[in-house]
Amino acid sequence: MHQLIHHIQKITGNRDIAGDNISQFFETKTFKKKENLLEEGHRCLAYFFVVKGCLRLFFTDSNGVEQTLQFALEDWWMTDLNAFRSGRNSAYTVQAIEETEVLSVTAANYDLMLAKYPVIEHYFRLVYERAYAASLLRIRMISRMPKDEFYDLFQSKYPGFIQRIPQKVLASFLGFTPEYLSELRKKNVKSK
Amino acid sequence: MHQLIHHIQKITGNRDIAGDNISQFFETKTFKKKENLLEEGHRCLAYFFVVKGCLRLFFTDSNGVEQTLQFALEDWWMTDLNAFRSGRNSAYTVQAIEETEVLSVTAANYDLMLAKYPVIEHYFRLVYERAYAASLLRIRMISRMPKDEFYDLFQSKYPGFIQRIPQKVLASFLGFTPEYLSELRKKNVKSK
Repeated sequence: MHQLIHHIQKITGNRDIAGDNISQFFETKTFKKKENLLEEGHRCLAYFFVVKGCLRLFFTDSNGVEQTLQFALEDWWMTDLNAFRSGRNSAYTVQAIEETEVLSVTAANYDLMLAKYPVIEHYFRLVYERAYAASLLRIRMISRMPKDEFYDLFQSKYPGFIQRIPQKVLASFLGFTPEYLSELRKKNVKSK
Repeated sequence: MHQLIHHIQKITGNRDIAGDNISQFFETKTFKKKENLLEEGHRCLAYFFVVKGCLRLFFTDSNGVEQTLQFALEDWWMTDLNAFRSGRNSAYTVQAIEETEVLSVTAANYDLMLAKYPVIEHYFRLVYERAYAASLLRIRMISRMPKDEFYDLFQSKYPGFIQRIPQKVLASFLGFTPEYLSELRKKNVKSK
């Protein structure tokens, strides 16, 4: 729990958080590399905070290709948020890219925790406000930026990603073919 | 103010909101068609809630073309949220598409209001949670969906938009040429 409490303190600036009260809402779980935390077409029953490791969120397109739309490293939250909010089946699979430890919260506990602790409401307002603001930049990058500029910007904003994520998965996330990504990387190494 | 109070009640389910307390943080402003509420490169000093009308958010690309990334109809919030949060200059222009009435709040008043009224914190947590969840679907549509399917889905989700928004602006938002959009519309009319 220590890491989530630390993140709440960091985001809200509030040092006065009773970790014991918050921890009752969570379960700690560990997933192996390539293990699924949530599966497309199944009920979305939990929301995950990454303590250590890395997750990806993907769907399988009509050609059977896995299309990765999001990653979550340490201190990030991940689930199919629409399905989690509505109690419907998930449109996505969430999978561990490395061995990953998460804190898992059910929808019922998420609601209880938010209703009971104003600092948690404040924390999630800030988490979503940031994430929503960042999504506009992502939409701009995906839809309006030449692919090589997009890669350069992505690399400068998230250098940790490029090292940790398998080439094929990263290419899918960026909307590139693996061959095109490999060319870009070679060009980048040369120009350094 | 009536419309914002109604929206807060609708989103939070809380009927017990003191409109007088909230209204002190806002100014009502009216903008003519094509008037700018916020300009690219200028300080982002306000956040807008649309009471009546329609706004768009765009930037001007290196070819001098206006690229529209977002719209806001009634009950939607709009600003360059990154710039508003940080106090930096805006990367976008916000412009009225029709004559538009907004409630405008400064960053200082936004923070005050959130700190003072837990129901407002709750409201914005839900507004951003929804908006962030919706942004994932938008990213999926933009990056992974054939253009004609994207248009069909957009039309079914937001039928009001298609009528109210100028063709050229809608094409820019969808990432189409105006000619391609015009073809899609003709095809749609025929197939009905």
